[in-house]
Amino acid sequence: MICINAHYLKLKASYLFSDIAKRVAAFQTTHPETTVIKLGIGDVTRALPPAVVNAFHAAVDEMAADATFRGYGPEQGYPFLREAISRIDFQARGADISAEEIFVSDGAKCDTGNIQEIFSTDTRIAIPDPVYPVYLDTNVMAGRTGAYTGGRYAGIVYLESTAANGFIPELPTDPADLIYLCFPNNPTGATIDRDRLKKWVDFAREQRAIILFDAAYEAFIRDDSLPRSIYEIPGAREVAIEFRSLSKTAGFTGTRCAYTVVPKSLMAFDGDGTAHPVWNLWSRRQSTKFNGVSYPVQRAAAAAYTPEGQAQVRALADDYLANAAVIRREMTALGYACTGGENSPYIWIDGKKDSWGFFDELLTRAGVVCTPGAGFGACGEGYIRISAFNSMANVTAAMQRIREALSA
Amino acid sequence: MICINAHYLKLKASYLFSDIAKRVAAFQTTHPETTVIKLGIGDVTRALPPAVVNAFHAAVDEMAADATFRGYGPEQGYPFLREAISRIDFQARGADISAEEIFVSDGAKCDTGNIQEIFSTDTRIAIPDPVYPVYLDTNVMAGRTGAYTGGRYAGIVYLESTAANGFIPELPTDPADLIYLCFPNNPTGATIDRDRLKKWVDFAREQRAIILFDAAYEAFIRDDSLPRSIYEIPGAREVAIEFRSLSKTAGFTGTRCAYTVVPKSLMAFDGDGTAHPVWNLWSRRQSTKFNGVSYPVQRAAAAAYTPEGQAQVRALADDYLANAAVIRREMTALGYACTGGENSPYIWIDGKKDSWGFFDELLTRAGVVCTPGAGFGACGEGYIRISAFNSMANVTAAMQRIREALSA
Repeated sequence: MICINAHYLKLKASYLFSDIAKRVAAFQTTHPETTVIKLGIGDVTRALPPAVVNAFHAAVDEMAADATFRGYGPEQGYPFLREAISRIDFQARGADISAEEIFVSDGAKCDTGNIQEIFSTDTRIAIPDPVYPVYLDTNVMAGRTGAYTGGRYAGIVYLESTAANGFIPELPTDPADLIYLCFPNNPTGATIDRDRLKKWVDFAREQRAIILFDAAYEAFIRDDSLPRSIYEIPGAREVAIEFRSLSKTAGFTGTRCAYTVVPKSLMAFDGDGTAHPVWNLWSRRQSTKFNGVSYPVQRAAAAAYTPEGQAQVRALADDYLANAAVIRREMTALGYACTGGENSPYIWIDGKKDSWGFFDELLTRAGVVCTPGAGFGACGEGYIRISAFNSMANVTAAMQRIREALSA
Repeated sequence: MICINAHYLKLKASYLFSDIAKRVAAFQTTHPETTVIKLGIGDVTRALPPAVVNAFHAAVDEMAADATFRGYGPEQGYPFLREAISRIDFQARGADISAEEIFVSDGAKCDTGNIQEIFSTDTRIAIPDPVYPVYLDTNVMAGRTGAYTGGRYAGIVYLESTAANGFIPELPTDPADLIYLCFPNNPTGATIDRDRLKKWVDFAREQRAIILFDAAYEAFIRDDSLPRSIYEIPGAREVAIEFRSLSKTAGFTGTRCAYTVVPKSLMAFDGDGTAHPVWNLWSRRQSTKFNGVSYPVQRAAAAAYTPEGQAQVRALADDYLANAAVIRREMTALGYACTGGENSPYIWIDGKKDSWGFFDELLTRAGVVCTPGAGFGACGEGYIRISAFNSMANVTAAMQRIREALSA
């Protein structure tokens, strides 16, 4: 008899953004006259940059002629893209990462979800709270947790990010082998400085743990004192995997391209204590279960690394950061404590009430969709996340509606 | 201490096509004057059809303007593509599959590799021999096998495909919960008729097993008596998942689009014997670990389902089938027993010697790359696979070289 992976039954019934979509749909049915402004899901709204579009078209034309057609590419990505990434995103910033250590993929969601497969089932997991749900759910599916009770899964070391610690968790006191970190943070928008990040790297070295560093939002950093990559921290090559994406930087949420960095010097251990390069495991995983990113998409992504593309990508991020500044300023003026919105497209707001309640208030009274903080974990209760991914016109309109609704 | 997934250590050290690439590279170094003709890996060589190219460009243009830009799409694929697939690939052939039961993905390799995650770790797996290595390797990684000894993994029920059974395995006598089948077969090129496939469906129903039916090569079927989908067999909706791909049909190996069919009536069981819809599990898996296929790629794929696209796709397959007929005719004339090459782009050839030896002979004496059958499993020993994916000019030249080499 065929049996299911029963760990799936431990998962909470539905996915945060599906719940939001249902509430929005229900509101729209009863209020068809309201144009809802969506500042919820972190999805970009602006067109692909011109350099990217041109390269995309040119590559489609290559696929249109037998002489230039490309079939299967390397599972890890084409050298032209891996080399551009290594040079621009790392070497230019003093981080020693080679093209061979870059694994191109179709999304940071896939990569952050799949990475746990290459580690032991009894790996002890440390996950921030609040958190991007994928880190947690994929470990639940893999059987690394117990039941979900009281808002938390048994067996997970939760790294609490609260106002008390400035939304940067303390080092865990419970043992942890695999530590998820994300800066600039989703959902809180908090950033981490070099000294604090170095404490995590040193801790991982001591514990022989690995840090999974999600840097999907690094393009929004404007403060040059902040690290954009964990590999700017000495010693990180021995303890960290980094995830990056073109989704939020070059507008690729619908185009799909991301990458994962696995340094060749990163080791994990077998039961005998023998060290094995993690690079080999990830390479084997990707070669076996993945067939590479669409060739035209890789050409489009590479164009984001040309001088012209880099300027256009920066301008895109600048526009979203201008939105973020408006949201932060307005919510602060209304008396709400805000984190993020500087060096980050997310603003994390203390709603001074339960977060689904504040979500409903903004939806029904202002026609604005945010994300309730409780959906990201127990420590998110009382907060909402507002995303800057929209047009300035929509952000300004949303803030005006919120101002009127909340002062009414 | 961070520990690896030690099941990876059971995997054979390298991947079949990497081994081939190394031997070819070594030969090219010593014989730079020979232009090697590659009939090894099953990779298409012809340009994308014009209807696909036009739709691809149009969708890139949509991404180039804020007003028509698309961000995250549905993880399961856009309705426009799922509906076209359901209508053309299934309903038009009398197979009752709805758009909701189609999950669009970036590759059948990913889907056939990932599907095992949603079943229990102690699921008993039946896998053909010879076989596409992904089915086996992904179950090894998941810990469903013992060690690899004597050319086989302990704990797998091997379904032997040999000349004696016409390369269609017998029903297993050992218990099996999850059964991988592939027709037209990779690597043997064998096809299965309705009566034989019905026996498998009936067996799965009796055993409460699930069949994973890989139909990636269905577009090469020209014999109308053969089933193109397992859902043409009564009762299959209760026991089968089907995998399809645009790779070999519309030339998408470098463009990346495929899909998996999970009928809503397909059930698997928990430890209490309670039935759970497999659709829910796969939907949750994909929503959590996947972010959908690139929007322009989905538009390109949908164009393959227009009347114009369908004609172009059929013409592409016809060209490869003409190559296959040449290979089959020539190898038969040279005295080799051949399977496939009709209703299939692969020709499975009894080399009358060890398969890596025959591979080396064709490489070094004729400058032609095939795939050694032993790379697909113990039952592949003594065989080679020749692929029809190339131009007619290259196929004709390769066959002339082989004829000269083998009659010399």
